[in-house]
Amino acid sequence: MAEKLISAAEVAKHTTPESCWVTLYGNVYDITEFLPSHPGGSRIILQLAGRDATEEYDPIHPPGTLEENLKPEAKLGRIDPATLVQAEPAAKEEKKLDLEDDSSPPMETLLNLDEIEQVAKKKISEKAWAYYWSASDNLWSKTNNNTVYRDILLRPRVFTDCTGCDLTTTLLGKHKVGVPIFVAPAAMARLAHPDGEQGIARACARFGAMQIISNNASMTPEQIVSDAKPGQTFGWQLYVQTDRTKSEAILARINNMPDHFKFICLTLDAPVPGKRELDEKQNFKNTFKVASGVKTKDESERPGGGGVGQQLFWGTAADLTWKITLPWLAKHTNLPIVLKGVQTHEDAYLAAKYAPQVKAVILSNHGGRALDTAPPAIHTLLEIRKYCPEVFNHIDVWVDGGIKRGTDVVKALALGATAVGIGRAALFGLGAGGQEGVERTLEILQAETVTCMKLLGVKNVSELSPKHVNTRKVERDIFDGDANLETSGLWEKVKSKL
Amino acid sequence: MAEKLISAAEVAKHTTPESCWVTLYGNVYDITEFLPSHPGGSRIILQLAGRDATEEYDPIHPPGTLEENLKPEAKLGRIDPATLVQAEPAAKEEKKLDLEDDSSPPMETLLNLDEIEQVAKKKISEKAWAYYWSASDNLWSKTNNNTVYRDILLRPRVFTDCTGCDLTTTLLGKHKVGVPIFVAPAAMARLAHPDGEQGIARACARFGAMQIISNNASMTPEQIVSDAKPGQTFGWQLYVQTDRTKSEAILARINNMPDHFKFICLTLDAPVPGKRELDEKQNFKNTFKVASGVKTKDESERPGGGGVGQQLFWGTAADLTWKITLPWLAKHTNLPIVLKGVQTHEDAYLAAKYAPQVKAVILSNHGGRALDTAPPAIHTLLEIRKYCPEVFNHIDVWVDGGIKRGTDVVKALALGATAVGIGRAALFGLGAGGQEGVERTLEILQAETVTCMKLLGVKNVSELSPKHVNTRKVERDIFDGDANLETSGLWEKVKSKL
Amino acid sequence: MAEKLISAAEVAKHTTPESCWVTLYGNVYDITEFLPSHPGGSRIILQLAGRDATEEYDPIHPPGTLEENLKPEAKLGRIDPATLVQAEPAAKEEKKLDLEDDSSPPMETLLNLDEIEQVAKKKISEKAWAYYWSASDNLWSKTNNNTVYRDILLRPRVFTDCTGCDLTTTLLGKHKVGVPIFVAPAAMARLAHPDGEQGIARACARFGAMQIISNNASMTPEQIVSDAKPGQTFGWQLYVQTDRTKSEAILARINNMPDHFKFICLTLDAPVPGKRELDEKQNFKNTFKVASGVKTKDESERPGGGGVGQQLFWGTAADLTWKITLPWLAKHTNLPIVLKGVQTHEDAYLAAKYAPQVKAVILSNHGGRALDTAPPAIHTLLEIRKYCPEVFNHIDVWVDGGIKRGTDVVKALALGATAVGIGRAALFGLGAGGQEGVERTLEILQAETVTCMKLLGVKNVSELSPKHVNTRKVERDIFDGDANLETSGLWEKVKSKL
Amino acid sequence: MAEKLISAAEVAKHTTPESCWVTLYGNVYDITEFLPSHPGGSRIILQLAGRDATEEYDPIHPPGTLEENLKPEAKLGRIDPATLVQAEPAAKEEKKLDLEDDSSPPMETLLNLDEIEQVAKKKISEKAWAYYWSASDNLWSKTNNNTVYRDILLRPRVFTDCTGCDLTTTLLGKHKVGVPIFVAPAAMARLAHPDGEQGIARACARFGAMQIISNNASMTPEQIVSDAKPGQTFGWQLYVQTDRTKSEAILARINNMPDHFKFICLTLDAPVPGKRELDEKQNFKNTFKVASGVKTKDESERPGGGGVGQQLFWGTAADLTWKITLPWLAKHTNLPIVLKGVQTHEDAYLAAKYAPQVKAVILSNHGGRALDTAPPAIHTLLEIRKYCPEVFNHIDVWVDGGIKRGTDVVKALALGATAVGIGRAALFGLGAGGQEGVERTLEILQAETVTCMKLLGVKNVSELSPKHVNTRKVERDIFDGDANLETSGLWEKVKSKL
Repeated sequence: MAEKLISAAEVAKHTTPESCWVTLYGNVYDITEFLPSHPGGSRIILQLAGRDATEEYDPIHPPGTLEENLKPEAKLGRIDPATLVQAEPAAKEEKKLDLEDDSSPPMETLLNLDEIEQVAKKKISEKAWAYYWSASDNLWSKTNNNTVYRDILLRPRVFTDCTGCDLTTTLLGKHKVGVPIFVAPAAMARLAHPDGEQGIARACARFGAMQIISNNASMTPEQIVSDAKPGQTFGWQLYVQTDRTKSEAILARINNMPDHFKFICLTLDAPVPGKRELDEKQNFKNTFKVASGVKTKDESERPGGGGVGQQLFWGTAADLTWKITLPWLAKHTNLPIVLKGVQTHEDAYLAAKYAPQVKAVILSNHGGRALDTAPPAIHTLLEIRKYCPEVFNHIDVWVDGGIKRGTDVVKALALGATAVGIGRAALFGLGAGGQEGVERTLEILQAETVTCMKLLGVKNVSELSPKHVNTRKVERDIFDGDANLETSGLWEKVKSKL
Repeated sequence: MAEKLISAAEVAKHTTPESCWVTLYGNVYDITEFLPSHPGGSRIILQLAGRDATEEYDPIHPPGTLEENLKPEAKLGRIDPATLVQAEPAAKEEKKLDLEDDSSPPMETLLNLDEIEQVAKKKISEKAWAYYWSASDNLWSKTNNNTVYRDILLRPRVFTDCTGCDLTTTLLGKHKVGVPIFVAPAAMARLAHPDGEQGIARACARFGAMQIISNNASMTPEQIVSDAKPGQTFGWQLYVQTDRTKSEAILARINNMPDHFKFICLTLDAPVPGKRELDEKQNFKNTFKVASGVKTKDESERPGGGGVGQQLFWGTAADLTWKITLPWLAKHTNLPIVLKGVQTHEDAYLAAKYAPQVKAVILSNHGGRALDTAPPAIHTLLEIRKYCPEVFNHIDVWVDGGIKRGTDVVKALALGATAVGIGRAALFGLGAGGQEGVERTLEILQAETVTCMKLLGVKNVSELSPKHVNTRKVERDIFDGDANLETSGLWEKVKSKL
Repeated sequence: MAEKLISAAEVAKHTTPESCWVTLYGNVYDITEFLPSHPGGSRIILQLAGRDATEEYDPIHPPGTLEENLKPEAKLGRIDPATLVQAEPAAKEEKKLDLEDDSSPPMETLLNLDEIEQVAKKKISEKAWAYYWSASDNLWSKTNNNTVYRDILLRPRVFTDCTGCDLTTTLLGKHKVGVPIFVAPAAMARLAHPDGEQGIARACARFGAMQIISNNASMTPEQIVSDAKPGQTFGWQLYVQTDRTKSEAILARINNMPDHFKFICLTLDAPVPGKRELDEKQNFKNTFKVASGVKTKDESERPGGGGVGQQLFWGTAADLTWKITLPWLAKHTNLPIVLKGVQTHEDAYLAAKYAPQVKAVILSNHGGRALDTAPPAIHTLLEIRKYCPEVFNHIDVWVDGGIKRGTDVVKALALGATAVGIGRAALFGLGAGGQEGVERTLEILQAETVTCMKLLGVKNVSELSPKHVNTRKVERDIFDGDANLETSGLWEKVKSKL
Repeated sequence: MAEKLISAAEVAKHTTPESCWVTLYGNVYDITEFLPSHPGGSRIILQLAGRDATEEYDPIHPPGTLEENLKPEAKLGRIDPATLVQAEPAAKEEKKLDLEDDSSPPMETLLNLDEIEQVAKKKISEKAWAYYWSASDNLWSKTNNNTVYRDILLRPRVFTDCTGCDLTTTLLGKHKVGVPIFVAPAAMARLAHPDGEQGIARACARFGAMQIISNNASMTPEQIVSDAKPGQTFGWQLYVQTDRTKSEAILARINNMPDHFKFICLTLDAPVPGKRELDEKQNFKNTFKVASGVKTKDESERPGGGGVGQQLFWGTAADLTWKITLPWLAKHTNLPIVLKGVQTHEDAYLAAKYAPQVKAVILSNHGGRALDTAPPAIHTLLEIRKYCPEVFNHIDVWVDGGIKRGTDVVKALALGATAVGIGRAALFGLGAGGQEGVERTLEILQAETVTCMKLLGVKNVSELSPKHVNTRKVERDIFDGDANLETSGLWEKVKSKL
């Protein structure tokens, strides 16, 4: 079945809301009908109309998106290679010439995660930076994620033998890991570096670190785990799709790789996308330069600009519930469920009631990317300690958000967390140096964690306890119930009715 | 009755405290006698003496001011048009040439209220900016209005169906509105844009938002509501005048428009003007350039400079009381009363005792423009929750001041507010883009509010409750009574005696 | 008795530690013997050696200092006027030429005390600025003095008649003043402006404000009160001298002016000078330029540099006590005593026990100039309210330090202060515009105070009460006793033993 | 035994990981075998390979290091002096020419410790600055050390005789000192100035101040005390070495100087080095310039860079315990033990149980150089006051960290400390002016302490008490136990089991 060849000149004629063609992976598509329903808005497509959009499209769309969203007849044929003129990769070239800013120092000279982030900022595209770095509204959730760790003091016990220090721990009751640090699901790793999610996997292998693969990964799960080490632990993040059959299909695919994927991580903290203004701004730059005169019918309904973040939400379901979604999951996978995005003790308590199907919660505010002024994970951890410590007996409690130092890791562990996730930090490591950059990130965190534990007089993770931290500055800011609840002392009754 | 024609040259001769003429709307007035009693000081008039002052006068004086303050014989005649030379609108021209600063970006690229404010700053006159933006003394009330929202954390509940989200609510027990956001009374909209208060009204219509018209509006109430939609809700703000007959006249006029005006909003938080230094400074600029050598008799009694804010207070009564003013109002209108400017739980409690004549209070410190270090509305809201929650059963509690984000709106609603007002934000929207700018302002707030509620797991306004917010950082700073009251536990007695 | 005439050339030969002459007020002195005992160090004199030092000496030495510290034979004769060459007042000339910085705006355009301070900074000498503005160590006491007022919120009551507002009050039980604001004792007013302390007195007359004259005033008490209005109230500040006969002499002089001086203000908060580094630095500038090579014997004992502040302490006694000093005072004056510098509730309690000789305390940390991290007056005021409110029944409690706004005045009054003092603010007013500058300072504070009281719904000073302020932010930082005292509840016993 | 002479040219040939020679103190060493085990990494040596490394090596290696770490045969012979070309001391010369920055002002013009620090920064090498100034991670421990003193307010009592003020006190129950201020052990004084530790000793002599000599001093203990005054008090700091015989040897040497060394100070707060990034960065500069291309086998195991701090830890034991180390010490010295680095009340309580062998603890977080977000000494002092005040009855409690002012000294003393140490401040004094700089440092602190005590109305150290300070701002942030402990009130039981 030889496909029709279409010339680049012909494609270039279709650049309006009335007729819009693009070339992707060598195929030519008529996407006119699809335009108004694009989650990022139609303008963002129109600026790519009439030309090869693969470079822009590829790293931010999950595999299979095209097939799922376009009718077969939208594919018009193949681009005629003979008619193509190789475009100059102008932006990249510019970056390469800018050598004085020393954007590629040896990895070993980078001493902490902030320095790695700064290198990544110089090396990755503005668009990738905006997508990774951005957070919702005024960035207060993101800022609080960091500062809350500063407000916790450590309590070093001295005159104890701290010759050795063992960071290994066991997750979900049976998976042994080399460090209590895991890579949290974060989308689109190839935006940072061609090593992508597989590069992160290889770096994790070196440290025995667990990795949770994003539902919006830029590589297939099979690719990512293809050269995993024996015993290396992965989880698969699921954003349930409105069209449940799509989600059932991906679950089936993951069920099929039991050597690698040990659980499904269901993300709950972002049923709708947060407002990440830097990401949206970045989008405007090109959109308005190219297409500011064009009026399209979807505009008036779109208050935000639609950055990468909003586009990724295409098709995500907002109707998940304890009562319906967990049984549906049970039908489609035997893997344990990890609930990501718990932000109150009430929901942690509920999650524990769903054990053993639910094996862990990740206290997370989505890296500050969903709701602004959401509680940092440490708040929720302290709430659980205060109102329903029995949760720790039933499920693992993991945290993420704002981890920059080994001391941060230790503080979370001392307060009861079993593992601590990094999201942006892994991507910035990748951006700064590919797989090697992620290794350096993990190496720094591991070494800082060991130093911290030794200086606390602690030999292994299980010895850490609340006595090693002073949380008073934070404790007085956590939720203390509505007034009636407190005075009447009815919390136990309330719990029973949750 | 042909009026006398006076030449511009003749007018130009009268520029001293001893003889001062101005041209306004084509009429020539001798305002020598009026000079010492001008609330803004005589110098501010002297700089306009001998010429056409309409452009300066018009947007900052309520309609009818001339007639009310000058004797008929002060009007000397009409200016002879043949003698006029068209003045060059120098300042404006400058603004228009300054295109590089990109002061008119497409509204849809503005992502939040701060960006809109920045555009407005570039587009409106310095004088208008100074009047709108300024607040009293060191701006601490204004600053606290904003930061108090940052100090409240949200508590998102997950795993709930948040597909839809309904923002409609009912005000004063019977007026249905599309959003729980209203435009608070703010004076002189035409200083920002010719669309004026009517432009705001049209923008509100699109969102079903309530609007309270300022007593110092720059358009007549009839103009403002002239093309209102059926069911669109307005309130009329009243500054009671020392000369009560003036206030009775405006009440009669408002009573006459029952389809539009549903209540009288009586402003209580500014019986005398606050000290808005930026506004006063702005005034000095011209005053001293033109007339610094002239000594006038009213100077020594005027400690402040007299910005737009002080001029607007001309004639405002400072002797309002619960016992006298409310009965007087009852005699002159059947409309319910909304009391604006309540800043303590004691006054909220008193207001509730005057239901049903009083149907609502607006917790407000006048946008930080009256008293510096006044409590932000959230403080008063928390005070009411703590000391006299029964208030919520009797009257609506609205708030304004410092609202910049949908999360701010949601926090106030969760703590018991029925509606949330924006003042400067509407004017900045107007300044940035006329009616379209106000629409963008409301569109952003509406979308942010929906996003926030969905991420909290809430389907409509009535589901919001104190459990959705963590107010501990703020709670510990609210008034807790004087020491004796607390130890003796006599608050209930005190309440009964208020 | 014709005095010997000495030529300027002869004087100029004596510029070493071995032989040091200076000309002062036309007299030539041999001060060689005095050099090592000069409180500011000998170098500071050596730089003036051999020439006319009147300009430097005059405004910073209390009248009579020469006579008290030099033996009669130190006076060698009169300078021969024929031998003098008029020195060029270089520094001042420079200042006058610097017109572009607009250092003399019309007083009425200055809207607040900070603006007046900025003008004063431009107009007065660096040395005067350094002396007035400086405070001890890291300026934390001074900074806290200001910020503590910001942390107190006001509680406006609305719907009350605030047409009029009466600021008059009565001090020490019988002296009626026009405003509850007084000028606190601050040294060396002529450093700021030739109007000096008399200029302040005239400004106070206009507002009926009380003035306390500094022990280190740059004019005699007789000069200062020479054209006081009937009923104008003055106090005299006393620094007790080691040589008590000097203090007894000044007391006798003050006792002699009963129409003007109503009390003696005994300063307790600075028995030794604080470390005001800016003042000391200013001194170094000239000292080291002129005399850096000279070794003098007093150097090694002088850790600080000896600014104006240290020089003024010359001869001040550090051995004052309740038991000895108050009876000694009773012997030498019938005037009531006001104790300045009380910084704990314990000392306020003690002071009240010495009523009626002691009629008032001034809660003061010496404008942050004595001890760094001393409590601001508001702390002490709140301590008194908490631990020994009976103090208010026995004596007046006045405060000073950090007053910048009418709201500050009102806050102190609401918490129980009878009057509120300004120190630097009066001097900066003087520096900015002489008597007129002080008037503007008082005018601003008076107007702000009235505005604040009206917006609180208060008609006069006596209506102000703790219910008008929210002090929670400050309350939680005041001293709460040492742990044992608190748990054992023995405070009443402790009080009885103080 | 004439040693072999080796030419400089021959040495210069050996600059690789395979064959690496250096000249030290005129001797030529083959250090190839030693390379991989160098605590600072091999690269840092390779940059010095083939040449005379004495200048870099000398001030940062304790005496005897060479002998302890190299086999005898590693010493190849003496450098042939005839073959040497005198290197130009380029860096130093540069410094000296830079006269405009006024880096050597007269000591007496420096008014506080910050100014001395700034002068030191200009005068010492970048490497020394980085080593002294640096602290762990984000410098939060170091920052908190300073700010905690600011948050404590003083409570001056007035009307007390403060003519005199006596700073003398007695340490460890019998050693009289002139000031309650001591010099804490800090390594490598000769990096700052050739006067080194002996210069500090001479400065201490002038004030009767105690000095604790660092285990890593750059001079021998015999040199340091060689001209000590009678009664001058020294302590010797011990870092126990993995090879205990080395520690036993130094103990024997110290035991031998009973007139000078009165105790052994065992450092507990840094069993492993903290992460001092500025120190490590400084190291990279040269390392990577010279040797960036070379791969060495120790690299992959070294996450940090290895600054001066890490190199000094070479051989330090990390296995010290109460039960084993204290008895071992008792066997090797009769001197009392002072435990440095206690950071919790639990460890202070334990230390007191080991009295009388343990005679004091130093509350210290190692100047913020070990663990970041460790508690400042004031926290631990307040913890002891709260949970186990009996500690003060059994042992001395000294503090260090963050002392910048006399008021800081007084605050620590008022809360129960017997003495207050300065570490960096002494080194910065040394760097700014050698012995004279240390004297100025002590002179300033002494004078500020006297001023503060006089202004508090206190005559001597023993009169200071908690009533002189208001610690509420700090008190509410100190550790308050884990929740269970608090509610069950079991602390007394817990103490008994420590």
